[in-house]
Amino acid sequence: MNKMQKIGVMTSGGDSPGMNAAIRSVVRTCAYHELECIGIYRGFQGLIEGDFKSMDARSVNNIVNKGGTILKSARSKEFMTRKGRDTAFAKAKEQGLDALVVIGGDGSFTGAMIFSDENDFPVMGIPGTIDNDIYGTSSTLGYDTALNTVVDAIDKIRDTASSHNRLFFVEVMGRDVGNIALNAGVGAGAEEILIPEENLGKDRLLESLKRSRASGKSSSIVVVAEGDKTGDNVFELKDYVEANLPEYEVRVSVLGHMQRGGSPSCWDRVLASRMGVKAVESLMEGKSNYMVGIQDTKIVLCPLDQAVKGKTDIDKELIRVSDIMTT
Amino acid sequence: MNKMQKIGVMTSGGDSPGMNAAIRSVVRTCAYHELECIGIYRGFQGLIEGDFKSMDARSVNNIVNKGGTILKSARSKEFMTRKGRDTAFAKAKEQGLDALVVIGGDGSFTGAMIFSDENDFPVMGIPGTIDNDIYGTSSTLGYDTALNTVVDAIDKIRDTASSHNRLFFVEVMGRDVGNIALNAGVGAGAEEILIPEENLGKDRLLESLKRSRASGKSSSIVVVAEGDKTGDNVFELKDYVEANLPEYEVRVSVLGHMQRGGSPSCWDRVLASRMGVKAVESLMEGKSNYMVGIQDTKIVLCPLDQAVKGKTDIDKELIRVSDIMTT
Amino acid sequence: MNKMQKIGVMTSGGDSPGMNAAIRSVVRTCAYHELECIGIYRGFQGLIEGDFKSMDARSVNNIVNKGGTILKSARSKEFMTRKGRDTAFAKAKEQGLDALVVIGGDGSFTGAMIFSDENDFPVMGIPGTIDNDIYGTSSTLGYDTALNTVVDAIDKIRDTASSHNRLFFVEVMGRDVGNIALNAGVGAGAEEILIPEENLGKDRLLESLKRSRASGKSSSIVVVAEGDKTGDNVFELKDYVEANLPEYEVRVSVLGHMQRGGSPSCWDRVLASRMGVKAVESLMEGKSNYMVGIQDTKIVLCPLDQAVKGKTDIDKELIRVSDIMTT
Amino acid sequence: MNKMQKIGVMTSGGDSPGMNAAIRSVVRTCAYHELECIGIYRGFQGLIEGDFKSMDARSVNNIVNKGGTILKSARSKEFMTRKGRDTAFAKAKEQGLDALVVIGGDGSFTGAMIFSDENDFPVMGIPGTIDNDIYGTSSTLGYDTALNTVVDAIDKIRDTASSHNRLFFVEVMGRDVGNIALNAGVGAGAEEILIPEENLGKDRLLESLKRSRASGKSSSIVVVAEGDKTGDNVFELKDYVEANLPEYEVRVSVLGHMQRGGSPSCWDRVLASRMGVKAVESLMEGKSNYMVGIQDTKIVLCPLDQAVKGKTDIDKELIRVSDIMTT
Repeated sequence: MNKMQKIGVMTSGGDSPGMNAAIRSVVRTCAYHELECIGIYRGFQGLIEGDFKSMDARSVNNIVNKGGTILKSARSKEFMTRKGRDTAFAKAKEQGLDALVVIGGDGSFTGAMIFSDENDFPVMGIPGTIDNDIYGTSSTLGYDTALNTVVDAIDKIRDTASSHNRLFFVEVMGRDVGNIALNAGVGAGAEEILIPEENLGKDRLLESLKRSRASGKSSSIVVVAEGDKTGDNVFELKDYVEANLPEYEVRVSVLGHMQRGGSPSCWDRVLASRMGVKAVESLMEGKSNYMVGIQDTKIVLCPLDQAVKGKTDIDKELIRVSDIMTT
Repeated sequence: MNKMQKIGVMTSGGDSPGMNAAIRSVVRTCAYHELECIGIYRGFQGLIEGDFKSMDARSVNNIVNKGGTILKSARSKEFMTRKGRDTAFAKAKEQGLDALVVIGGDGSFTGAMIFSDENDFPVMGIPGTIDNDIYGTSSTLGYDTALNTVVDAIDKIRDTASSHNRLFFVEVMGRDVGNIALNAGVGAGAEEILIPEENLGKDRLLESLKRSRASGKSSSIVVVAEGDKTGDNVFELKDYVEANLPEYEVRVSVLGHMQRGGSPSCWDRVLASRMGVKAVESLMEGKSNYMVGIQDTKIVLCPLDQAVKGKTDIDKELIRVSDIMTT
Repeated sequence: MNKMQKIGVMTSGGDSPGMNAAIRSVVRTCAYHELECIGIYRGFQGLIEGDFKSMDARSVNNIVNKGGTILKSARSKEFMTRKGRDTAFAKAKEQGLDALVVIGGDGSFTGAMIFSDENDFPVMGIPGTIDNDIYGTSSTLGYDTALNTVVDAIDKIRDTASSHNRLFFVEVMGRDVGNIALNAGVGAGAEEILIPEENLGKDRLLESLKRSRASGKSSSIVVVAEGDKTGDNVFELKDYVEANLPEYEVRVSVLGHMQRGGSPSCWDRVLASRMGVKAVESLMEGKSNYMVGIQDTKIVLCPLDQAVKGKTDIDKELIRVSDIMTT
Repeated sequence: MNKMQKIGVMTSGGDSPGMNAAIRSVVRTCAYHELECIGIYRGFQGLIEGDFKSMDARSVNNIVNKGGTILKSARSKEFMTRKGRDTAFAKAKEQGLDALVVIGGDGSFTGAMIFSDENDFPVMGIPGTIDNDIYGTSSTLGYDTALNTVVDAIDKIRDTASSHNRLFFVEVMGRDVGNIALNAGVGAGAEEILIPEENLGKDRLLESLKRSRASGKSSSIVVVAEGDKTGDNVFELKDYVEANLPEYEVRVSVLGHMQRGGSPSCWDRVLASRMGVKAVESLMEGKSNYMVGIQDTKIVLCPLDQAVKGKTDIDKELIRVSDIMTT
């Protein structure tokens, strides 16, 4: 028996392209099934403050292709306290919410789980992060878009690199995982890719750069994930290379927050649409504490605690492909 | 025991973004394993004519991000005859080729299989087509790029559609399969999507359009696959709708061949890089008559005859998602 | 003495990228000078119907980069009658409007002039059309964006054209003027450009295509303006060429309405911002019946009747450049 | 009397989008007039080293839309010495060059002038730099493309800025001139724009940011030219703002070298095509020591010494427009 009547939806943590498409999907799936849908602004903080907005199918017109999130996002310290969560629950009850769809990353999912456990309140997660570091789904919302943003930027940098026979270090996002660096590095034809998951040392980098020049390449791109530990940071790496390979003229480019924005790719829009439907309909079926994911071509559910605790591994085969490509 | 020493690579049939990245990967994997690599121009026709070019790792610099194919592509009638294929085999032997990597669609794979069977000659296929209609892989090279091209174009069309409260029919590629129409339609927020796999009739289209206006939408996009049979063609559909819903001002846009070009998306570049490695290394392991595919996150092999004969189905779940999104 | 207190702004006729940036500029310039600003929906038709919305500086947040027009646009038959215009004037008075800024093309400016003359009502025009066919300004809003859209599409088409050694006819907008065809044709490296302003006949086209192949080019792009009279239309041209040059495989691409949409280029956004300021401040200075234009780097005024009656000429020097580039 | 028979072309200094289109135009104009054309690699350094390549019309196929420069670019210390220039002249004579087209910025033009004066050797300049800081032309090659790259990046940054109600400092190129910052800042709707030409002090920045929040804006973008002197640098500015406006969460983005690359805009491609024709034909007419420029819609010549010594001013009217837009 389904007693769902009113579902809240929020975006939480770092934003990513496709979050708006997911909001739209949640809202329209509610409308399709004649449920009420309440938008909650600024994630859990907005839940605590009762920052709500009733949303119908027309509230989400023309947002499927917009980056960012119309519901805004935030990290809430208050929600990390029991007191904060109690207030949040009171607001949810006051508003008449029966369940919550949380679009965000693992930090947000952890919060959602605790909230659900403490209050026996149904929650469903949709993975929205450009890092693609969530267990239980082969793709998170925004990851594909971010990869395209990065290769597009590196394509531009390569134009000027090859005009001047220069070496560029390009820092991309990824504090703990190298997915963006590795995939965008292969996609952009980088000569070397430095990721948090493996530290081959500065010497190997020098060797690799020497080999690249020797093989006849006149310019080089090295993609460096934020969290890489080969050097202290990307600027220190530049100094090290210039000190040891004085024939190189090195430049640094830090791509930064543009990686989080932009109109989502078709993949991210479709994925968001599918995930939103699954999230709402799973709640209607009485399920709770799952994350919606995709595996191969199928939309699946993964228990939230697995999604949070499970570890994703860097693709070793792709590291090998990367090595071969730099022949 | 591996006796592979010289591998030929060609692109065949309709071109698609990512083919250059696949050529690059085949060439560099050969170089990595110290095999010779011969580029064959214009597909099987070039094989018949002995239109060859020796390629080393530097021959494929700066093409990972280029649309089209530097080896050119063609359809060869001559290769459909035994005489043509015999000539092709003679040229292959003359050149000293030990195996062939064919980047193309199912027509090209069929030719490759017959050629392999007649001459006991190792072949390996890499699926390159924007239609994503090949059995044994969840993604073909160029499909992801084409989807992004289409949603980008429809986003532009929607700007003017909504400024004028108009209805647009947008025809996209897909003679036999509706993958592009369905995915790009969902991605672009189309109000209706017409695909070859289901013909719900003109009346349902009228109903759907009426419902869309009644729900408060002032403009509408209908995405139509080339092969759709709802009307004789997209222009006839326009006339039918204008005759029956005179309050509508209808425009038609046929996206055409721009869908086949453009710089490949990161996904297509990475997929091409991975597939090229697998194709060459599988040949080195003595395998033949396979197509390289991707399933979930893994690169796999599928027997060529299955790839050719197997049928891919339109994603019924996505059709349902599409319906819900137009609430 | 300045008695301006309330200014209406509308977009009229075909929409073009940059119109939203112009609306934003008009609204914010009013706010800056503490004037009221009233948005009028759907051009003159909305004026007749009193379809108004009060706008302040925050009403136009986040639209500078959006294609289309948030005020919608339309062509009004009713406004072509005296009765319609009288109703419009009554509504304007009722609303307390002191002046009108009309963003549109020459048809809209003609309407604005008549309205101004009949009612002694101050109007100011801002040229918004992708055709760049307005006398008194070297650039109209949306033209630069449309050129970029067209070259981007032709770049994609060239990828597939050169992969298959094909000839493409690409039809672009321009019923009466060849500005888009000529500039985008030169920008995209077209082998031939057909424009309404000169009809060199089908024979010259054949000669030109033969010469192109003879010179070693294996693929060709011919850009054709909608209003070109070389053939009956672009499809008839294709048939003619195929009948006379059977070695050619010809494809047609009609770019269509995507040329009207898309996020405006930086040039169009800046131009719109500058024009909006000038329009409002000129009204405040007591001026009326002018169009704002740009000449070289300066924002200027041009009497509306000159803007409407004056003829712009196709750039003969650029036609010559085009010929030289196809060497 | 025209004795021009062989013209050399080079790109020199920092590269910019459109340089390839200009090379193509010079080469094809030479071919059109049956002159020989010699490509000189790496600017003046390549001239000194005799790093030449004969180019015909087909050598420049498919480069009109490519960023960077196929002739590579460099800065040459050797050319700054008389000895270096004498060697360069000897190489030029040895190769039979009658004149030189130099595509670059004011540093390159200064070198070209000295070389021309010392050796009575005809030179012609084409302005290629993203900074648009050359006297005698209202637009330099690459400037328009760079503006579009910057607004596109800032559009993406704004997505995430507005999702999190953050303040972003975005550093763009421009060591001495604020053209990119000012135009891209207005185009992207920046709340504040900091340029080298005016230093209003840190206090005004704080005032402006406070006013922006007070007016109801929840996120802000401040565009900062590299050469701005409001703070020591953009990171120091961030610290200052966070110290004085603790309610702000500030992020920094340094766009870097991607601003120099990318496929040129239609404007830059057409401008390059026109300038190349003018450069070659002016040399054929016996002219020397000019730079080709554009004023309004006309291609003009400006004496090289004026181009080098003349000062361009920041557009004061646009600074005012910028202020009004942030109302």
